[in-house]
Amino acid sequence: MKQSALLSDFYALTMAQGYWLRDYRQEAVFEMFFRRQPFGGGFSVFAGLETLLEKIRATGFYPEDIAYLDNLGIFDKRFLDYLSAFKFTGKIWSMDEGTVIFPQEPIIRVQGTLIECQIIESLLLNTVNFQSLIATKAARVWLASGKGRVMEFGLRRAQGPDGALSASRAAFIGGAESTSNVLAGKTFGIPVMGTMAHSWVMSYPGEEEAFQAYADIYPNHPVFLIDTYDTLRSGIQNAAAVGRRLAAQGRTFGVRLDSGDIHYLSMEVRKFLDAQGLTDATITVSNDLDESIIQTLTNAGAPINTWGVGTQLVTGGSDAAFTGVYKLAAKQDAGGSFQPVMKFSDHPEKTTNPGIKQVWRLVDANGNAVADILSLDDPADPGDAVVPGNRYAFWHPSADYRHFYHDVTAAEPMLKLRMDRGELLCSETPLAEIQKKVKAGLEIFDSSYKRMLNPHIYKVSVTARLRDLKLDLIKNHLGDL
Amino acid sequence: MKQSALLSDFYALTMAQGYWLRDYRQEAVFEMFFRRQPFGGGFSVFAGLETLLEKIRATGFYPEDIAYLDNLGIFDKRFLDYLSAFKFTGKIWSMDEGTVIFPQEPIIRVQGTLIECQIIESLLLNTVNFQSLIATKAARVWLASGKGRVMEFGLRRAQGPDGALSASRAAFIGGAESTSNVLAGKTFGIPVMGTMAHSWVMSYPGEEEAFQAYADIYPNHPVFLIDTYDTLRSGIQNAAAVGRRLAAQGRTFGVRLDSGDIHYLSMEVRKFLDAQGLTDATITVSNDLDESIIQTLTNAGAPINTWGVGTQLVTGGSDAAFTGVYKLAAKQDAGGSFQPVMKFSDHPEKTTNPGIKQVWRLVDANGNAVADILSLDDPADPGDAVVPGNRYAFWHPSADYRHFYHDVTAAEPMLKLRMDRGELLCSETPLAEIQKKVKAGLEIFDSSYKRMLNPHIYKVSVTARLRDLKLDLIKNHLGDL
Repeated sequence: MKQSALLSDFYALTMAQGYWLRDYRQEAVFEMFFRRQPFGGGFSVFAGLETLLEKIRATGFYPEDIAYLDNLGIFDKRFLDYLSAFKFTGKIWSMDEGTVIFPQEPIIRVQGTLIECQIIESLLLNTVNFQSLIATKAARVWLASGKGRVMEFGLRRAQGPDGALSASRAAFIGGAESTSNVLAGKTFGIPVMGTMAHSWVMSYPGEEEAFQAYADIYPNHPVFLIDTYDTLRSGIQNAAAVGRRLAAQGRTFGVRLDSGDIHYLSMEVRKFLDAQGLTDATITVSNDLDESIIQTLTNAGAPINTWGVGTQLVTGGSDAAFTGVYKLAAKQDAGGSFQPVMKFSDHPEKTTNPGIKQVWRLVDANGNAVADILSLDDPADPGDAVVPGNRYAFWHPSADYRHFYHDVTAAEPMLKLRMDRGELLCSETPLAEIQKKVKAGLEIFDSSYKRMLNPHIYKVSVTARLRDLKLDLIKNHLGDL
Repeated sequence: MKQSALLSDFYALTMAQGYWLRDYRQEAVFEMFFRRQPFGGGFSVFAGLETLLEKIRATGFYPEDIAYLDNLGIFDKRFLDYLSAFKFTGKIWSMDEGTVIFPQEPIIRVQGTLIECQIIESLLLNTVNFQSLIATKAARVWLASGKGRVMEFGLRRAQGPDGALSASRAAFIGGAESTSNVLAGKTFGIPVMGTMAHSWVMSYPGEEEAFQAYADIYPNHPVFLIDTYDTLRSGIQNAAAVGRRLAAQGRTFGVRLDSGDIHYLSMEVRKFLDAQGLTDATITVSNDLDESIIQTLTNAGAPINTWGVGTQLVTGGSDAAFTGVYKLAAKQDAGGSFQPVMKFSDHPEKTTNPGIKQVWRLVDANGNAVADILSLDDPADPGDAVVPGNRYAFWHPSADYRHFYHDVTAAEPMLKLRMDRGELLCSETPLAEIQKKVKAGLEIFDSSYKRMLNPHIYKVSVTARLRDLKLDLIKNHLGDL
């Protein structure tokens, strides 16, 4: 099915018409990178790539899209004819989906005419920003839980139906083991899970009957919600009564806490269950959990088996947006060569790194990550590649005096060609593989980078050549003013 | 087109099977209300109703949905046959879309079999929570701007494609005058707007050429982005050079500030433009704005004409979810009468108000809002209606001693029947009408309720009869423990 290219900022279309009218068909290279780690964290997880590539491949304008644009009264008929047949025909390089990523490094690189690069901009940012935000949140939640069992529960508080669906995908990539969203289960093959609502309990004359009825229909480890009336004075008693009958049949069950002090209640409930010999009974908790609360509970040794995380996981909570941007890095001159460009801005941190770039992850002899390096990746001049066996000086990207030397033992380019002439070069990776990649990818970073609060800042440096290019462009720019 | 009912929490389907298997066909009444004002504010704006009703009307299971559920191995074939033909056949009452709303009061009331009430729960909460969050944010932004011109710019940072599309709709309802999202423009008839990107400026040898080229194509008040190189030393100079030529042709233009200190730059830019006689030139600002920043700038008298608000507006920023919940209020007994129910919970604020309810907005003789009242709305016993001409005592909903007396001059029931037997009773309201309703609705609340920080808490009270019912149920419940 065609993906309507109207899912775009209006200025992409007005600028595209501008390029088209002046017959500007030169190619450009845009890079997507992000500016700051969300959640005050030390890492992010790249997600949304497969969703994005599939949509870019299918992007185009429906006849009714063209009719709508025509009605706006500012588009030339010939340009609208061009849009009617529009298809993205450029190249896309990107990191693997599931890669652990850091600010300033290009995650995705797009090469095509300025028009086509611009038309896919909003789609690219919308898709990758949101899924990366949620995959990052999920990885933090998963780490905070001690790499435990996380159920994603967010549908009812998510930002719209796709805010739920894409979030379920990204949360699974980041480490959640299941979702409550049945459509996400069907669409992405994610395991679906759920317990029961208060309304189930309230539809019966009493709690015990409600739990028993549920266990009769779903005998495979039913999870009873025990806070409808009073967790300790009624809920756990009634759950245990049903649970003892299940245990007598060799079956297990669980309980879910959804209000009150989770730490205190989980300890009391565990004691009560253990005292009755129900040591296999599991405790699931929920109620506006995030990674800080989970880590506090984990550190305190609260006896919790499964974490149901909803709102905070699917919206990002306090940080509801990923800071990804898409910036022009180079443009073709009249002779067809790519010339590096950069944006200066009145905010120093909004100044970009010029030129077509590649990214390299340096690891030490034990395979632990040391730094990521940005180099120039000019196909016409591959001299800036980071080659194992060599010793290099790598520079701080803000172009000051700071640098370090490193004997490169292993390095491979992280940006790989995924799409050429608008066609996908790779087949879809199963979601479970991407999740594995995230978990393995996090292993090579020492724990200081994964600390929840004030983490160690991982180094993202530039080669001498990229640094010199940047300094030259800044010098020329200052000379102009 | 059918709306897949799989966009649901899994437990809705497992519980539905439970009700179905035990032949539980009694009706239930659920009410949607919210718990806490977002953004630390004093009011919210109800949005999403028309989207929701349209989807509920169309909700059902596709054959492939049924096949997916069958594959999970826990659903009875007869129940799946029932789902295949599922259609919502109940009744829905709700407030008007665009109503100013407060915590604890029912916004939407659903009556139907427990099964159908449960199957639409996630869809209802997902739709109304998100759109109400964003409409509320937009109303705050609009008020902070001094009821000024707000452009919604959020697509690239929104939570997925629908996180953008629904947000554009809700932002318009809450007071934004346009969107950058072309698909939202086409889908909802919202005016689309945009300026230009840095890449436009960078695709030309110089800023002046870039601005002139844009003005040549779009002569109707073009807006030039002036911070690509240096706002004051180059951007404004080049914009003014082009602007003087436009002025000579009797045309106007604007400039956009997207970085640096907006307050300082807007004053400098205004001075520069005025000194050149370009007093008609407008100043648009953007760069991670929210209502606090906007209010600070407005209070400081910064000469800003238009506000471009993106990320914070379409995601809610620090508050990324609306706290709407959907709770069982009454259930039919074997004789067909509705019996009030309530949830107690270990958190007092999670205790619900029992019974089928109606909401009344009391106004004083000048038409200013005094309080909202919850009453019992039993069709079999309409004796709890709030009737003009009478004097009543209204009680604090936490069932303590606080109350006030009021001579009711005008009151009409806010919950109106919108859907019966699954069919819509009303035709679609134009979005601009809903926006007008919000603006008029806000007028009747004095400014203390609309303060951004620590606002006055608007009264939501209950009738004596509802208070007595609640106290009785609590007494019975405590007696049981």
